Amino acid sequence: MAILSELGTEVFVPVAAAVGIAFAVVQWVLVARVKLSEDAAGASGGGKNGGYGDYLIEEEEGLNDHNVVVKCREIQSAISEGATSFLFTEYQYVGIFMSIFAVVIFLFLGSVEGFSTKSQPCTYSKDKYCKPALFNALFSTASFLLGAITSLVSGFLGMKIATFANARTTLEARKGVGKAFITAFRSGAVMGFLLASSGLVVLYITINVFKLYYGDDWEGLFESITGYGLGGSSMALFGRVGGGIYTKAADVGADLVGKVERNIPEDDPRNPAVIADNVGDNVGDIAGMGSDLFGSYAESSCAALVVASISSFGINHDFTGMCYPLLVSSVGIIVCLITTLFATDFFEIKAVKEIEPALKKQLIISTALMTVGIAIISWLALPAKFTIFNFGAQKEVTNWGLFFCVAIGLWAGLIIGFVTEYYTSNAYSPVQDVADSCRTGAATNVIFGLALGYKSVIIPIFAIAVSIYVSFSIAAMYGIAVAALGMLSTIATGLAIDAYGPISDNAGGIAEMAGMSHRIRERTDALDAAGNTTAAIGKGFAIGSAALVSLALFGAFVSRAGVKVVDVLSPKVFIGLIVGAMLPYWFSAMTMKSVGSAALKMVEEVRRQFNTIPGLMEGTTKPDYATCVKISTDASIKEMIPPGALVMLTPLIVGTLFGVETLSGVLAGALVSGVQIAISASNTGGAWDNAKKYIEAGASEHARTLGPKGSDCHKAAVIGDTIGDPLGHIRPVAQHPHQAHGRRVPCVCAFLCHTRWSAVQVPLRTQYQWQRYYDERSTDITNNICQLLVCC
Amino acid sequence: MAILSELGTEVFVPVAAAVGIAFAVVQWVLVARVKLSEDAAGASGGGKNGGYGDYLIEEEEGLNDHNVVVKCREIQSAISEGATSFLFTEYQYVGIFMSIFAVVIFLFLGSVEGFSTKSQPCTYSKDKYCKPALFNALFSTASFLLGAITSLVSGFLGMKIATFANARTTLEARKGVGKAFITAFRSGAVMGFLLASSGLVVLYITINVFKLYYGDDWEGLFESITGYGLGGSSMALFGRVGGGIYTKAADVGADLVGKVERNIPEDDPRNPAVIADNVGDNVGDIAGMGSDLFGSYAESSCAALVVASISSFGINHDFTGMCYPLLVSSVGIIVCLITTLFATDFFEIKAVKEIEPALKKQLIISTALMTVGIAIISWLALPAKFTIFNFGAQKEVTNWGLFFCVAIGLWAGLIIGFVTEYYTSNAYSPVQDVADSCRTGAATNVIFGLALGYKSVIIPIFAIAVSIYVSFSIAAMYGIAVAALGMLSTIATGLAIDAYGPISDNAGGIAEMAGMSHRIRERTDALDAAGNTTAAIGKGFAIGSAALVSLALFGAFVSRAGVKVVDVLSPKVFIGLIVGAMLPYWFSAMTMKSVGSAALKMVEEVRRQFNTIPGLMEGTTKPDYATCVKISTDASIKEMIPPGALVMLTPLIVGTLFGVETLSGVLAGALVSGVQIAISASNTGGAWDNAKKYIEAGASEHARTLGPKGSDCHKAAVIGDTIGDPLGHIRPVAQHPHQAHGRRVPCVCAFLCHTRWSAVQVPLRTQYQWQRYYDERSTDITNNICQLLVCC
Repeated sequence: MAILSELGTEVFVPVAAAVGIAFAVVQWVLVARVKLSEDAAGASGGGKNGGYGDYLIEEEEGLNDHNVVVKCREIQSAISEGATSFLFTEYQYVGIFMSIFAVVIFLFLGSVEGFSTKSQPCTYSKDKYCKPALFNALFSTASFLLGAITSLVSGFLGMKIATFANARTTLEARKGVGKAFITAFRSGAVMGFLLASSGLVVLYITINVFKLYYGDDWEGLFESITGYGLGGSSMALFGRVGGGIYTKAADVGADLVGKVERNIPEDDPRNPAVIADNVGDNVGDIAGMGSDLFGSYAESSCAALVVASISSFGINHDFTGMCYPLLVSSVGIIVCLITTLFATDFFEIKAVKEIEPALKKQLIISTALMTVGIAIISWLALPAKFTIFNFGAQKEVTNWGLFFCVAIGLWAGLIIGFVTEYYTSNAYSPVQDVADSCRTGAATNVIFGLALGYKSVIIPIFAIAVSIYVSFSIAAMYGIAVAALGMLSTIATGLAIDAYGPISDNAGGIAEMAGMSHRIRERTDALDAAGNTTAAIGKGFAIGSAALVSLALFGAFVSRAGVKVVDVLSPKVFIGLIVGAMLPYWFSAMTMKSVGSAALKMVEEVRRQFNTIPGLMEGTTKPDYATCVKISTDASIKEMIPPGALVMLTPLIVGTLFGVETLSGVLAGALVSGVQIAISASNTGGAWDNAKKYIEAGASEHARTLGPKGSDCHKAAVIGDTIGDPLGHIRPVAQHPHQAHGRRVPCVCAFLCHTRWSAVQVPLRTQYQWQRYYDERSTDITNNICQLLVCC
Repeated sequence: MAILSELGTEVFVPVAAAVGIAFAVVQWVLVARVKLSEDAAGASGGGKNGGYGDYLIEEEEGLNDHNVVVKCREIQSAISEGATSFLFTEYQYVGIFMSIFAVVIFLFLGSVEGFSTKSQPCTYSKDKYCKPALFNALFSTASFLLGAITSLVSGFLGMKIATFANARTTLEARKGVGKAFITAFRSGAVMGFLLASSGLVVLYITINVFKLYYGDDWEGLFESITGYGLGGSSMALFGRVGGGIYTKAADVGADLVGKVERNIPEDDPRNPAVIADNVGDNVGDIAGMGSDLFGSYAESSCAALVVASISSFGINHDFTGMCYPLLVSSVGIIVCLITTLFATDFFEIKAVKEIEPALKKQLIISTALMTVGIAIISWLALPAKFTIFNFGAQKEVTNWGLFFCVAIGLWAGLIIGFVTEYYTSNAYSPVQDVADSCRTGAATNVIFGLALGYKSVIIPIFAIAVSIYVSFSIAAMYGIAVAALGMLSTIATGLAIDAYGPISDNAGGIAEMAGMSHRIRERTDALDAAGNTTAAIGKGFAIGSAALVSLALFGAFVSRAGVKVVDVLSPKVFIGLIVGAMLPYWFSAMTMKSVGSAALKMVEEVRRQFNTIPGLMEGTTKPDYATCVKISTDASIKEMIPPGALVMLTPLIVGTLFGVETLSGVLAGALVSGVQIAISASNTGGAWDNAKKYIEAGASEHARTLGPKGSDCHKAAVIGDTIGDPLGHIRPVAQHPHQAHGRRVPCVCAFLCHTRWSAVQVPLRTQYQWQRYYDERSTDITNNICQLLVCC
């Protein structure tokens, strides 16, 4: 048995989560010290009175400090209102969908035994009695809703802190780049720690509460817990797609008229779409990205738990061993806490060029510490040897083997992060080459940018492939699930540096809109350039971990569906593979088109305002920001439906018409093709954005030959940047919900069939026998179609 | 037995090929009637004397007709010289590679029995004696060289007729769009029929000559014949990559300085890169595309033959049945001949708007007639029932079943053609939407263009998936091979409408350079716009058939390598899949970067000439065309090596280090991912080109609001067009050579091992046992690496 007792586990996990939440609150308080109220502004304006010995630029330039603070506050509240109102609108629609989906889950899981409340013989042992399907359904639905709500609350709080911190970052930038960096980074940390800790604590409490009912029936217990992952990843789909369309439409629309046509700077307050653009950063890159990473995190924890429940941990009722995934996450919170101190307290940033190294150090420190952390927890929490089930066969795993699985995922994440940085930071030659290609115009910029994205796929794919190979060889699908968890174990730091980007972006926007000096803007731009890189790194993590999680879920689906082999040589699988590989293109076409048409609407509105509102270009009249916010909101709500439907319906339709084999092919094809598109598109977008920033900043001899702002090179770079927005938005076609659904798809039809054919009595506790039952009858297409017609 | 006797087959195939060649010669003679010599120019200038009652625009506008003809002739010979010199340079390099490769093939196939000249017991029956490995090696090498040479000669002749016809098309355009169309189309037909017929007749003669030696040993016979496909597809790789980089670099370079910077029209004689640009069309889109389709054609024929050799045809020595693939191609030549007459003789084109429907009619007519043709030949040449081997198991197939396999491939090709036309022709809304998006600048143009490409993948993939499913269900891998053959059965017509595009493009270029009136240029532009669509259709066919052929070869590889199951759930296969799906991105990154850097060099040279040669912009001095031609030539020769190496080395390295299972995964992954990128990139490129032409032509109310040339919209459209050039160049990462190599990869190492370990005596006739032998020892990585080190 393990060294760590059950009691130790029961104490350690909630304590770690509580520490994380407390740390987030402390950071929030520290950020809140930067006052936006008039009194404090006066105090802060007094420089030395505010406790800061720094020299304020504003004073130097003789601007009225008080007015600037008031302006910043106004802009911040406009952004905050826009973001809150969008999220509320989005949550209403998503809420309706989630409720319907919850009812469906409850009905079809509950119906398998005709809503009986009697205990049934267990599948693994006929002597024992397990909990009835009705209660499994109830608990699954409850955990599904809990997952969705946790994701929603985390995203919403992240948005709140971001819109709380952006103006504060701007004001701190007056005191130097270091102060601004700390404010932005602390705010990111609030989001990171809140999300990681609440995700952990809710999952932990849910397990413990459910355990009161389930007792020794751990298979049933962790089966219902998977609903948590499904809830998280369903929210992720909508958060990502809805928020993504919002932010990109606003961004493209604002840039096209403002920067390209009217030749006014980014974030100029005369641009009517400027508030919508800033709102977009908060709802897309903060709330959306938060839900997305939460989805991956919840899915990987649940996948690891459900696989572990049929291992020797589950059978021997080794609670500490079972909770290994939660323990890894707990250690992760502690490690990230220490790592954060390196950025905010142990060192101080004094110059622009120190920003990127500081963020990179975060990645390295967290990974190095986490490796030690995993080693310790693997030694403490795992028995020296245990058994895992692998498609029917058993596999012996040592605790050090499992440590290696988690560690390889963690380090693969670091490699992906570094490669992403190399390809998207303007400190290295790839982005500089892209910037250089702007000499010959927008066309070569686009060509070089796309080529860069394609090239940036190579190493991450090898990193993922090696992790898969090694972790599967050591511990089969459990190994892959914990490798994904390893990649996400430093999620708090990852999210902190990720959320830091949009906060800096907003801070720059507020500086511009408040009419602050160009030196402030230069500082926020430097923060933002580093932020673009970190955003790409964050996407890299999200994509990499999504790939691993998907594979683990794919494995779970396949073993549940009773498929022993998914043979590429069988045409059923091969056509699934080729059609699946096509799905990310379909999905991307939809989202890109959505962004394109929403952006066109935005462009028309912005042009209309410029043409009809007198004095707008001169800055004497205020534009109508609200209409632009409304356009983005309406477009994204409307446009998130078709891609969402594609993702949700595909497994249903494929599973129903062609059976589980083809569905497996589709899932595998979508996975391997989607990962590539996602990585390349995200890096291409990041590279274009930073190539533009490289020219704007003019920090080197080379960069100065390309600039300044407004030169032909710069115009070409802006075109690339604008294209990059919807491109960077492409994601692997909804890896998790897809898979999560995939896993349950045959059940949906089974459910539908069941309601009609209630005479058919099949004694079932979990759904997988339904699937097998369903699958046996679904070997040919015609038969399937007939069934569908009869059923539905 | 079949109705058609062996004698009938022996007569029909060569006769059909001879008819095809004769038809090509007749077309050539008809094209040659348009005289470029001074005497005839006088006669043609005389209008009615030349036998044409048409009214010459030149006369109307009072231009000196004689001078125009002389100019056209000069330009044509400059293009022809440039193309010939490039191809000779390319062939020198490729020749060296092919010779080395031929020696390698000979050595490793010959060495399996220690270069013994003694007959060995057959694998299928120990009682019989089969031909020794040394002779198999000799014949395989011979057929490899024959395939390469046939491809080379066909491509070269295609280039010759194209550069012979371009100026003639220009001159005919004076007499009306119909005459010009017929000249361009006839020239395309010369290429199409020459390639299809010579491909068929060389293969046929090779089989018959080899049969003299092999006698009844048909397994050995058709095994050596596969070298023909390998030769064809190896040439295709270099032709496509080398020619592709050439044409795109020249095109991008010429456009960037000429159209974007200097604001001079396309093909303006003042642009120093203009000749290189026109040369590029001939070496890339004519010679390269020719080799490419020839490669697919040769591979699919050989794949069908080698699968058939172990079917009941091979065992019963049913020569007519064996030759079914050749008979289908023979019928195809006859059908295409009739189809061509519809375009050139039965109807005449009188207006610009009739061009696209005429080309579309070609597709429909050829497909409809071919369906009847296949039905007849399936009835005549096949026994009512026969047996196919499917991974060890036997499968009964009827003649009507096999008809259905070929027909479904054929019709899938038509569907792909139509979808491609819909997405790339400016007669439909997708391209018009892209053109419309130019209102808001280049960025939205790029976004909409990329989204269009992604969307255009959906239906073709379903068409390919259905063909695979149906043809495999009916006749296993043989079904897929003949479906590929079905798609390519109308290759003569496909190549004719494909080659028609670059010829028209060149004709337009010559009109511009010769200073002919804008009305001539309008006509050639209309021909060219239709040509862009047909080029995209041609690429669609090439990609679709490559996908099917690859799958057939993949099947052949897998069954040879003794792999029974390629299980996606095994990590070895899955990592192969994900890495394979990455390869097309790597390949694309290489080729796009190559095009980008070659284009940059070209841009610098063009700028240098504009800046240093006095009187160039004024048109009083001639630019230095030759230097630009040299830059493109050098760049493409140098740059074709890395992508070529990637394609050729991948199977070798993967097979050696990770074994056959992972290699299978890589092949499948590259296939399913490459098809998507290829289709979407090719259609995006075509759509951008035609969106630009749509604005330029201004044929509708909508188009006129976007134009005219030089407007902001038009400039945005030109940027899209320029980006599209290298994009359209992306191809599924060398499907065939990849596979063809893949099939032999383990043998390469086996050969290397063998030379060292000559003590190991393994009696082998064909290589597949070597593969199995090799595979058995290659289950783990370390072991493999050690082996490699010991071996090599």
